[in-house]
Amino acid sequence: MGLNKKAVILLSGGLDSATVLYWAVNKGYRAQALIFDYGQRHRREVGSAKALCKKAGVPYRAISINLPWQGSSLLDKKSVLPKAKTVKDIGAHIPSTYVPGRNTLFLSYGLSLAEAAGAGAVMIGANALDYSGYPDCRPDFIAAMAKVFRLGTRAGRQGRPIRIIAPLLKLTKAQIIKLGNKLGVPYKLTWSCYSGGEKPCGTCDSCLLRAKGFSETKKKDPAGLYSQKRKTKI
Amino acid sequence: MGLNKKAVILLSGGLDSATVLYWAVNKGYRAQALIFDYGQRHRREVGSAKALCKKAGVPYRAISINLPWQGSSLLDKKSVLPKAKTVKDIGAHIPSTYVPGRNTLFLSYGLSLAEAAGAGAVMIGANALDYSGYPDCRPDFIAAMAKVFRLGTRAGRQGRPIRIIAPLLKLTKAQIIKLGNKLGVPYKLTWSCYSGGEKPCGTCDSCLLRAKGFSETKKKDPAGLYSQKRKTKI
Repeated sequence: MGLNKKAVILLSGGLDSATVLYWAVNKGYRAQALIFDYGQRHRREVGSAKALCKKAGVPYRAISINLPWQGSSLLDKKSVLPKAKTVKDIGAHIPSTYVPGRNTLFLSYGLSLAEAAGAGAVMIGANALDYSGYPDCRPDFIAAMAKVFRLGTRAGRQGRPIRIIAPLLKLTKAQIIKLGNKLGVPYKLTWSCYSGGEKPCGTCDSCLLRAKGFSETKKKDPAGLYSQKRKTKI
Repeated sequence: MGLNKKAVILLSGGLDSATVLYWAVNKGYRAQALIFDYGQRHRREVGSAKALCKKAGVPYRAISINLPWQGSSLLDKKSVLPKAKTVKDIGAHIPSTYVPGRNTLFLSYGLSLAEAAGAGAVMIGANALDYSGYPDCRPDFIAAMAKVFRLGTRAGRQGRPIRIIAPLLKLTKAQIIKLGNKLGVPYKLTWSCYSGGEKPCGTCDSCLLRAKGFSETKKKDPAGLYSQKRKTKI
């Protein structure tokens, strides 16, 4: 039996997961995307994710996740989003935008869909270099979830484990963008900003990491809005 | 710093998690229950879970989980529920009532609530002796999730891991019922049957395991309905 090339892609509509989507298609996976609306401020991401799927010709499911508890500035519109003093400070601590259990939940839903659909893999855009410092983006966490995938499913117990594929885990933001540009990712359609405005704020951690990445590739951000407004050293 | 005695109890309304609820209260935990409606046939469980919380004086949250994919006879009303020939056959194979990723999802939601609420533990009624054979009820799975709890959270990374407590993991159904009777669990309020009728069917795996448990304790099931209708050897 060959490799099961059916895969569920966890798609946020941001730069990273968009790159994973195109990576999967390029590698010959029969991809289906799973998009989450979990009450995030930047629900605009959800629209970006759907637009990306249409562009890539990939079917998707969008589901709402009910997290009635708070615990994150990403969900609570009243709290202030953090702003690192310099982009180097980002990732040194776990910021207030951390959503308790987010990637555990996303991967669990991905696992459930993958097993129900007979898919062999769940893909996630987690990366642990130019990232916000979230605990659930790090390699040891991904490895722990992979064990859960093996032990917690019928597929895994029957010797057909559903894999977690995180192709960006050890890439810098610039390396991700270079990869995506090769693959033809329409970054114009992606949305990275943590706030929910019409235009990216240019000052939140996510905007800053994106600006740093494009700056290092010496390419303009096609979304055209991610110029760095804060005077921080890149 | 003493042990964090705030705990989230995953409560289905069945016999096992009801016992865990009373166990937690008896051990001095400040319990809050988390109840899931995930489209199960036996949604009557949800009402049982709420009634148990009211009886025990424990606050609860009930949330809906959207699993638009099927993959289980427990969700698909058109499929036939499995019936083991004898109660000994139950658990030998993973039955069609298995819901892909269910306990992974439940524990992930529990993790998210626990971290947001500052709780130190998530409790689950999983047991792996008189059980249906589900992969996500076994000790190695619970251990793998405990590692996810340590690595995937701010709390865990900061040295305050949220524990998974599964006090029934290695008890037989009869031992669970004996424990619950000591603790005063109102088993009359619990619901175990997989089908969604007015009365328990008395023939599904779950009814059969319950009947076996009460039979071994030589006590009558106070719900009064779980007499064994099938002529199977216990």
